[in-house]
Amino acid sequence: MKYKITLSYDGTPFCGWQSQKNGNSIQDRVETAVYKLCGEKTRVTGSGRTDAGVHAVAQVAHFSVDKELPLKTVVGGLNAYLPSEVRVLSAEYADEKFDARKSVKKKTYLYLFYTGAPLPVLNGRVCNKTGLDEKRMNERAQELVGRHDFKCFMASGSGAKTTVRTVHEVRVERQGDFVGFYITADGFLYNMVRIIAAVLARIGLGEDISFSALIEKGDRTLCKDTAPACGLYLYNVEYV
Amino acid sequence: MKYKITLSYDGTPFCGWQSQKNGNSIQDRVETAVYKLCGEKTRVTGSGRTDAGVHAVAQVAHFSVDKELPLKTVVGGLNAYLPSEVRVLSAEYADEKFDARKSVKKKTYLYLFYTGAPLPVLNGRVCNKTGLDEKRMNERAQELVGRHDFKCFMASGSGAKTTVRTVHEVRVERQGDFVGFYITADGFLYNMVRIIAAVLARIGLGEDISFSALIEKGDRTLCKDTAPACGLYLYNVEYV
Repeated sequence: MKYKITLSYDGTPFCGWQSQKNGNSIQDRVETAVYKLCGEKTRVTGSGRTDAGVHAVAQVAHFSVDKELPLKTVVGGLNAYLPSEVRVLSAEYADEKFDARKSVKKKTYLYLFYTGAPLPVLNGRVCNKTGLDEKRMNERAQELVGRHDFKCFMASGSGAKTTVRTVHEVRVERQGDFVGFYITADGFLYNMVRIIAAVLARIGLGEDISFSALIEKGDRTLCKDTAPACGLYLYNVEYV
Repeated sequence: MKYKITLSYDGTPFCGWQSQKNGNSIQDRVETAVYKLCGEKTRVTGSGRTDAGVHAVAQVAHFSVDKELPLKTVVGGLNAYLPSEVRVLSAEYADEKFDARKSVKKKTYLYLFYTGAPLPVLNGRVCNKTGLDEKRMNERAQELVGRHDFKCFMASGSGAKTTVRTVHEVRVERQGDFVGFYITADGFLYNMVRIIAAVLARIGLGEDISFSALIEKGDRTLCKDTAPACGLYLYNVEYV
């Protein structure tokens, strides 16, 4: 039986999604929970990796086990064996052809800035940045939409075959002191959202930067910094 | 020289504001930081206690030391010696007559509910409660405004001389999946906000409860539960 699960996690205490030698990964934790619930050792495949300190509002994963369990038992049982920083929100029976990574059609990431006086309760959950002009950010960010070669926003050391991606939608919006940058694409290059978020913050502080020009020049060094992992949330994964 | 400081803290790892034997209190941490910065052992007096797990957006405290320091040094220096869960937001030179506890005119608390699917990044920072009707809550909560005997909302074991307080303003508002209950008064009884918040949640879920009737009856048992500490924030302290 193949199961599709949706998970939310606080990435703070983990080395990231992906299983690593001597690492405290979220993937390992979920695989351990599946083993405890079903008595079967199996791989749990996520829609993609998230780095150390990156959070998920909704990550999707699949796994196959012989055991057939009611979906309520899958949710409740896995949560009973998972640390409180990882929660299974829902479970579905998946088609044998479903693959949480390969079947992805669109993904949305949220990069969350906090523009007020830094609050300790938000430590590790936002990127503190005062004085952001979210309207200006939203306007300029629209240049990202479309099919482009995004190599200027890719961290080195990545083995991507192609650096062309299609960004479907981009939106920057304020809720009180929070400014959220949402980006939906068919896929993302390594550190792409965090590199874009750092450029976007500079735009929000008044710098005159054009995303179209950066894309055209294709030069990673012009984009400068990578925004910290703690502001990044895997927000949604879509399969249709 | 007397200093007035405004602090924000994540109450999760602490036993509360107040210094306790063998306890990890916020007050102790601030007194240690003052000692390290000024070389003087002195009491740091807060506007009032906050319990274990209760947070502060803005707590106010005072302390007196011989040393005269630029205010920027007070903020930066204390933060250098404080754990990341406690931040000094600002400092002022205070009049000798100023007392962070006795001079308080009004305090505002925020009780924060989260109505979406529980998110691990919000663990210990909100009270999860789905299905709240914030308009209904706001309407009914207005009955709290005014000078009343609030003894029905007081936890037992408190040594308050009088249980009469004046509530100046009450407001329940939604921001996305968050529902915040803000209450401003000249003072609060022990656990008053958390007991009111628990009643308010029942109202938000559809129960027909009148705050006026509860106040008139003056019976703590009718109010039932105390909402968890982790949803409570000391939000603002006013002195004029």
